[in-house]
Amino acid sequence: MILVKLGGSVITDKGRYRTFDQANVKRLAREIVRSKKPVMIVHGAGSFGHVLAKKYRLNEGYRDRGQMKRLAQVSLDVRDLNLRIMDALLSAGLPCISIPPGACGLMEDGKLVSFDMEVMHRYLDLGIVPVTFGDVVLDRKRGFGICSGDQLMSLLAIEFDAERVIFCADVDGIFSSDPHLDNKARMIEKVDRSVLSILPKSERNVDVTGSIHGKIESILDLAKGREAMVINGRVRGRLERALRGEAVKGSRVIGDG
Amino acid sequence: MILVKLGGSVITDKGRYRTFDQANVKRLAREIVRSKKPVMIVHGAGSFGHVLAKKYRLNEGYRDRGQMKRLAQVSLDVRDLNLRIMDALLSAGLPCISIPPGACGLMEDGKLVSFDMEVMHRYLDLGIVPVTFGDVVLDRKRGFGICSGDQLMSLLAIEFDAERVIFCADVDGIFSSDPHLDNKARMIEKVDRSVLSILPKSERNVDVTGSIHGKIESILDLAKGREAMVINGRVRGRLERALRGEAVKGSRVIGDG
Repeated sequence: MILVKLGGSVITDKGRYRTFDQANVKRLAREIVRSKKPVMIVHGAGSFGHVLAKKYRLNEGYRDRGQMKRLAQVSLDVRDLNLRIMDALLSAGLPCISIPPGACGLMEDGKLVSFDMEVMHRYLDLGIVPVTFGDVVLDRKRGFGICSGDQLMSLLAIEFDAERVIFCADVDGIFSSDPHLDNKARMIEKVDRSVLSILPKSERNVDVTGSIHGKIESILDLAKGREAMVINGRVRGRLERALRGEAVKGSRVIGDG
Repeated sequence: MILVKLGGSVITDKGRYRTFDQANVKRLAREIVRSKKPVMIVHGAGSFGHVLAKKYRLNEGYRDRGQMKRLAQVSLDVRDLNLRIMDALLSAGLPCISIPPGACGLMEDGKLVSFDMEVMHRYLDLGIVPVTFGDVVLDRKRGFGICSGDQLMSLLAIEFDAERVIFCADVDGIFSSDPHLDNKARMIEKVDRSVLSILPKSERNVDVTGSIHGKIESILDLAKGREAMVINGRVRGRLERALRGEAVKGSRVIGDG
């Protein structure tokens, strides 16, 4: 099974509240179906989640009852995004089911500790692709918090022993600095732990799920014993070719040990 | 806590595929908020679920892989209905969260045996109203099946020890025969088990979740130790007054023993 992450920047305009990129999502859905590979899918919340979650500081956990309508709004927005993605996947011919972490997951201090794996295994056994996503999730210590799509990727890669893990971003791979800001940014084809020391500390689009350092660290962790790569999900055909195992432009992440 | 069921016939046109009754749902949402009572909400799938579920016989469980896209379509449609209801509830001012049984429940031979109650309790404790609904749900014996909103009502009434349970239908209460077909139909103000023997066997709108007999039996069961009533959710003000504990037209169901 290949685990695919559709990053928030690939399915939405991350800076503009609730802007869905339907054309790109439809194309990615068709590429997944055409590859004929068994997959599981995780998507980010993009501008359906991060804009309000950041504004209302939902990543910091419970402060007061006034936050509850805001939490409900972010949950509603993210489910709205998810429904559009499910519609695109099913329209492309993929039998799929949405598993919202906010409805069946629990965190402790920001770490997802409970998620109904039996349900996901059973859907996979039936030939139905489970789709989950970054979401507002209950937290036993903090009341609630943000569970990132990347955290779900780590959990699912291990639970389902994914043979390969593909992250779709809005750039060609992992860069030495932010390619949107720095025209000297260089793509790193093979990423290992040593890369963390050369990455810049400040960056564009730090969202409520953390910095690029944290993201790379979590990819390094899940890459143990499997292939992991970051590719550009905005370039036609790249996901399909990566799914098929063909060589494509992108960064390969080499896990420790 | 008062457990409220918004029947499929109150929120959709049950006979016409995917026809949402937005005006009625918005009014019901405002009535729930104005009542200022703590609630939990269950809704039916109406024409977003029953039309295709019946056509594809999804209530009979797994037959072949060809059903999987159909299952995914029904799941997508029901989540679409749910999203519209969540939007109406939140717009009316109710902080709420959707808990889809298809994502976190498991049945065995048509009976829901696993559902994440900790998540629901925690949302209630935060002041967020859990909303769940009739859905396609995995079944350990049959592969999958239909979990009705009524089955969820029974489970939740007991788990959360609801003080009152209100079912909103498209008629004034429980009738001696189908009031849509028989103009001699008489509303039964107090319903106990003896009523089952006088009810007609054939009826309009038997859906994939079963007959009116089964529905009344399950209401009789959950009415033990709490007030249960069936009211007309299409008449303005009736839900609000029922929530406030005022006397309204409808059927009271008297549980055994």
